[in-house]
Parts: sequence; C-alpha cells; structure tokens
Amino acid sequence: MQLSKRAVEIQASPIRKLMPYAISAKAKGIKVYHLNIGQPDIQTPPEMIKVYHEFSDKVLAYGPSQGLEVYQQGLVHYYANLGIALSTKDIIVTTAGSEAVTFAMMVVANEGDEIIVPEPFYTNYNGFATMASIHLKAVTTHAENGFALPPSSEIEQLIGPKTKAIMLCNPGNPTGTVYSKEELFRVANICKKHGLYLISDEVYREFIYDGLKHTSVLEVPDFADHAVMVDSVSKRYSACGARIGCIVSRNQGLMEATLKFAQARLCPPTVDQLAANACVRLPETYFTGIVSEYQSRRDLVFDALSKIEGIICKKPEGAFYIVAKLPIEDAEDFVIWLLTEFNINNETVMAAPAEGFYATPGLGRNELRLAYILNKDDLARAMHIFGEGLATYRRLKGF
Amino acid sequence: MQLSKRAVEIQASPIRKLMPYAISAKAKGIKVYHLNIGQPDIQTPPEMIKVYHEFSDKVLAYGPSQGLEVYQQGLVHYYANLGIALSTKDIIVTTAGSEAVTFAMMVVANEGDEIIVPEPFYTNYNGFATMASIHLKAVTTHAENGFALPPSSEIEQLIGPKTKAIMLCNPGNPTGTVYSKEELFRVANICKKHGLYLISDEVYREFIYDGLKHTSVLEVPDFADHAVMVDSVSKRYSACGARIGCIVSRNQGLMEATLKFAQARLCPPTVDQLAANACVRLPETYFTGIVSEYQSRRDLVFDALSKIEGIICKKPEGAFYIVAKLPIEDAEDFVIWLLTEFNINNETVMAAPAEGFYATPGLGRNELRLAYILNKDDLARAMHIFGEGLATYRRLKGF
Repeated sequence: MQLSKRAVEIQASPIRKLMPYAISAKAKGIKVYHLNIGQPDIQTPPEMIKVYHEFSDKVLAYGPSQGLEVYQQGLVHYYANLGIALSTKDIIVTTAGSEAVTFAMMVVANEGDEIIVPEPFYTNYNGFATMASIHLKAVTTHAENGFALPPSSEIEQLIGPKTKAIMLCNPGNPTGTVYSKEELFRVANICKKHGLYLISDEVYREFIYDGLKHTSVLEVPDFADHAVMVDSVSKRYSACGARIGCIVSRNQGLMEATLKFAQARLCPPTVDQLAANACVRLPETYFTGIVSEYQSRRDLVFDALSKIEGIICKKPEGAFYIVAKLPIEDAEDFVIWLLTEFNINNETVMAAPAEGFYATPGLGRNELRLAYILNKDDLARAMHIFGEGLATYRRLKGF
Repeated sequence: MQLSKRAVEIQASPIRKLMPYAISAKAKGIKVYHLNIGQPDIQTPPEMIKVYHEFSDKVLAYGPSQGLEVYQQGLVHYYANLGIALSTKDIIVTTAGSEAVTFAMMVVANEGDEIIVPEPFYTNYNGFATMASIHLKAVTTHAENGFALPPSSEIEQLIGPKTKAIMLCNPGNPTGTVYSKEELFRVANICKKHGLYLISDEVYREFIYDGLKHTSVLEVPDFADHAVMVDSVSKRYSACGARIGCIVSRNQGLMEATLKFAQARLCPPTVDQLAANACVRLPETYFTGIVSEYQSRRDLVFDALSKIEGIICKKPEGAFYIVAKLPIEDAEDFVIWLLTEFNINNETVMAAPAEGFYATPGLGRNELRLAYILNKDDLARAMHIFGEGLATYRRLKGF
C-alpha cells in the first residue's frame, strides 16, 4: 500500500525527531536539559486554571465555528489595550496558532502557489505548507547580522505570478529578531506594490527586550485588505496545552472565506476558550516580571555563547530562542553526540538543529536553536555543559 | 485582493448556513426547535467534567503529538472491550474527528487524487476534501432502499488510476444506515482487489438500534494495511466541545507518516484529553439508557414522518439522523419558509437541507436531514409543527 507523496515528503519535526536519543539517555540515568523545545516553565495564570475548575455546563457543547462570542469580545478588549481597534467580525478563534497559519495559507493561496518567508523560519511552517500544498520561497537571512531582512530588491526578485503572500514571524522563532516599524512598513509596501497579503505570526508579541516596542501588521496604515495576523495564547500565558489561537484580519471577504474553513472543523475546544478568556483581562503588569525573567535568561545564554570562540550569534531582541552558528560541520551530529556520548556528572543538554528551519538545502547545517525556557540555575548549568561539550566535540572531531 | 480558488469554492456549512434565519426568527420572539444540528442534549458524563475540576498542573503544557500516553492506553482499553486488539502505536489522538479525517485524506491521497464515498455523506467531508485538495467521487445511494450500498460493480466502475481510498461513515451521518458485516466485507474486498485504503468513520459506533451489532473496519481479517479508522468522543459522550478524536490503523508506515502531520500542529488539547480519558472506563451500561432513549426518539420521528403522505424514508438503524425525501421541489426554500413565514403559537422548526450532503449536482434538493437530539416532548411538538408546516407549504406552493 502506497502512501501519498506528501505523506512521504512532509518534514518530520526537527525539534522532536531527536527525542528518542534523549529518551535513551534518560533511560541510562542521564539528566537532559531541554533547550530544544519552546515549552515555557512559567506558571500558567491561576485565573486561567480556575476556569477549568468552575466549568459547570451540563453538556460540553459545540461552540460557534468563529469562536465563543464572549472570547471574541475578550480578544477585542486585549487588542484594544495594545492600541489595535477591532470588532468581533475581524477575529476567528482557531485551534492554536497552528490552525490559524494553515487557514491563512489556504485562504490566500491555491495548490502550487508560493508564499515568501525569511529563513530560518519556524520549522512547522513546512508542515503547514505541505498540508496546504503550497511552496515556501525563502529569503535567506544571516546570523552575522542578527537575521535582519535583506534589501527590498532581494525580496522582490522572488515575487512571481504564483506568489500570493509574504509571511513574517515577529518576534521571530527561531531567530529572536524583532522587526522595527520601518522594516515592517518596508515589507508592507512591497505587498501593496505587488498585490500580496502579509501574514504576520505575532505569537511572541509581549516577549520583547531592552525596551523595544512591537509593531503589529494590523498597525500598518491603509493595509486592511492585505494584513492577516496569526496569534496564540500558548507562549503568552504559558498555556501551550490549551490549543487556542486566532486569525485576525479586517479584510471581510477573507474572514468570510476563513469562516467556511472553520465551519468544516466545527469549532475550537470550548472549555479552553473560556480559560483563555480569563487571560485577556490580566493586568499589563502580568508580563512585566515574565519579560524581565526572559530577558535575564537571554543575557545568560547570550553571554555564555559569546564566550565560546568561533560561535556566531547576535543578541536576540525578542521571543525566547537564539540561533547560534557553531564552528563545526553538522549540528545534528553534535546534538546526537551530546545525547549519546557526552555528559558531565550524568548531565547533558539538548538543542534543536537549525537545518530544518531553512528551506534552502544545506543552509543551517552548523547552526542550533536554543530555547531559554529553563530557570537560570538550570540554564547556567546547561550552558556550562554545552560549552564543555562543544570543546570536547571539536577536539575529538578535529574542528 | 483575490482569495484563493479553494477559499471561494469551499462549501459553506449547509447545517449552519441558514442560522441567520433562525436568529431573526428568535429575535421576533419565535421559539425554534433545532433539528438541523447534531448537538446531543444528553448530559456529558460527570466523571468527565470532574477531570476539568481537578486539573492541577502548574503549567498547562504541550502533550506529545500522538496524544497523551495515558489516553492512548485508555483508548487501547476501550477498543479491547469492543474486541478490537490494538497497541498505543496504532492510535494517534487528534483534535476531534475532523482532524482525523483530514489527516487520513492527506496521508493516503495526493492533491488531485480521488476518494470514493457513498452519497449522501457527512457534508463536512467536502470541506476536508477542499483542504486536502482531493476529489470526492460519489456512489449514489437512495432513500427508497434505506441508502444501502449499490452492487460492487457500481462502486468498481468509479475506480480509476487516481482513486486511493473508499470512505464510509458507519453508522451513517446523515442516513442512519448501519452497514452489515457482509456489506463491510464486500467493500473491503473491493479495496483489497484494487489496492485501496478503506477509511471508516465510526464516531456513532454505539448508537445502533433494534439489537443490531456494529462491525468495525478494524475487524476485517487480513486487512491491516488497508484499514484506517476515524473516531471521536463528541457524540459518544456528548462532549462535542472537547474536540478529541483519533485516527487508528495497524499500518505502521501510515501511522508514522500521520505522526509527521500531527507533529506540525504540535498536539491536541491537553486537559480535554485527560477528560476524554475518564470516559473510556465508563461501564457498558452507560450506553444502555442513552441508546434506548435515542431509539425511542427515532421511533417517534420515523412514525411522525411515516404518517405524512408523500414522504419517503426508511427507518434508520443507527446514529441520530434521518433523511426524508419530501413531496416538494426545494427543501432549502421550505426550511427558510418555516423560519420566516410559518409558526404555530410562535414556535417553528429547523432542519438541514440535504442537498449539501450530496456531491452530485441536483441530488437531494427535495430532501432534509433531521437530527433527533431533543427530548421526546420537544421532539413530538417539533414533528407536529413540521407536519403542519409541510402541509401548509404544499398547499401554498401547489405541490
């Protein structure tokens, strides 16, 4: 029995595929510090957990396909606090950001169409693109200059008759890059000039450091028909298991079409939406402590990496990832080696090889993504092991 | 700004698209009996709701892409009780049956490939097919003989080089048809002969009447590589809002490929899986009362329809739907008329026009799907209004 071509070709998660090595290591009694996956350790707001405790409907029923109205209204409130005026008809609640990206791709592009995306990009975009049968065309960005966007001409030369959209992740996973207002407006102008949608994945909106300010695609003037925003509560409220996201656009035709995709799958989970709704009214101070915690973790990881000779990385401005270019050949081989052949006092560390975050074959082979989602003591220990491991690996392998 | 062709063409839900008429009717103070949507009124098991109340993790974290192991094991137990031996690697937990169907389609068929499905079929298969860019090829079945499967030759003549699977819904939504063991084995033999997968949507497994027994596609001998089963807790435990389903196959290559699709969207909702897991150990008697309640509702609706001259329908054997062929031209026009121009003591009734459940243009235009998901008093009242409404409509329109 043959499988479909797409089933054979769809990317296995580069974040999760090395997990069997970690499981084997643990079975041998080795403690693994997981810097490979973006699962925050921050506590989920008790206000959110309380909603699960208080759910008292007799029948756990379907909600509307566009999401529970009370939660749509909650989101209107949340965005209003950010200075983004929306109405409920601009918002469709989705089963996490994953579904929002998939819907966005399907609604703007047909099978075989293209979406331009700066690489390295969130690797799961590959899976969504396979599901939507579209091609991701990559604009390469580089560790050397903090993964900044290239000149517009470099982006524009990729635009062809099948190009339907540009997609940004801002702040960026895996790069931690935050696009300035000027950079975002520059991309928006390209979209206006060529009649493209701009899909902006803003799930890390609040995780921005050094006093920088985030600019949403929804804040670009005269851009209502082009702007499609993808969002999620997963990282924002440390609620990855709730699977609640949304797709936001003021383009009403696009939202009406998206609703038809949403109707096919009936609705997002009901109790989780109610729980997410408890978060939209958390005070702004909720993020203050969390952001300063992440900023100090970022500093710790960046300082540790900076002290290692031959590593190239710039200090990320947002999200909770950093991509480091290593003075070795194959970062995946290094991670497997860390999990199978190296430890310090029965402890080792795991990171995600970055090659899967690139669409261009061969790029990123000597890069890793590290997620700084552990407490600082563990993170310091993990970075020490990482540094010692890299030194040993280089010596053994002759790099 | 243009939308994609698929966004323009994807079917609007025929179950939900007439809702604005119902909302207007309610705004005018009219009570609407909803027979249009399969939202059961049966109470969700308190054992399940209790799990939400007791969730006490500090961090609402991602689960594994294949589902929480404890719930996979729970499902192994549930299927073992049905006489179906599985191991956890045969099961991937999905975000409701919807995602399971979408994954099944994508993993067996490429863009442009075909899946054969008896019509009328669950209308949302159309949306999933659009998302997967595949074509549903319909084998027409008829109200006159209870929507039984046609002779094998009629199915086989539809099979071409692009055909990858046959898909059944058993018990059937919208038909209520339960395929006998012989019928199922006959379709399985066609699949064996032509190298096709058999995707079986069995979400209504327990809702079977008159002492009939359900046969799962997983019980077909020598069929492990072909059989793909789709399941959901939505109807079984009256938990439509939990959005928990699964895809089951003993074809390990297929399951490994499905896991890659599952990894792209990370995981199904965590707390809802734990809640669903409380249901798998409910005693068999849990269903006894519910099934007898549905059976008596079916009898009530079928008896009411049988008394109306000119209606064609057979008594359904399972699920909680019935498709009735009416002695009029356009069932959608009739439903809109019921919602806008007819009431008895300020009460009216809503059903789902069946045309959207057919792939062949023009078929089902004079058919309706009625869901018997109300208590018997309401159902009796609704059927009385339905009968009077139909008589009035025929008189007014000259049918």
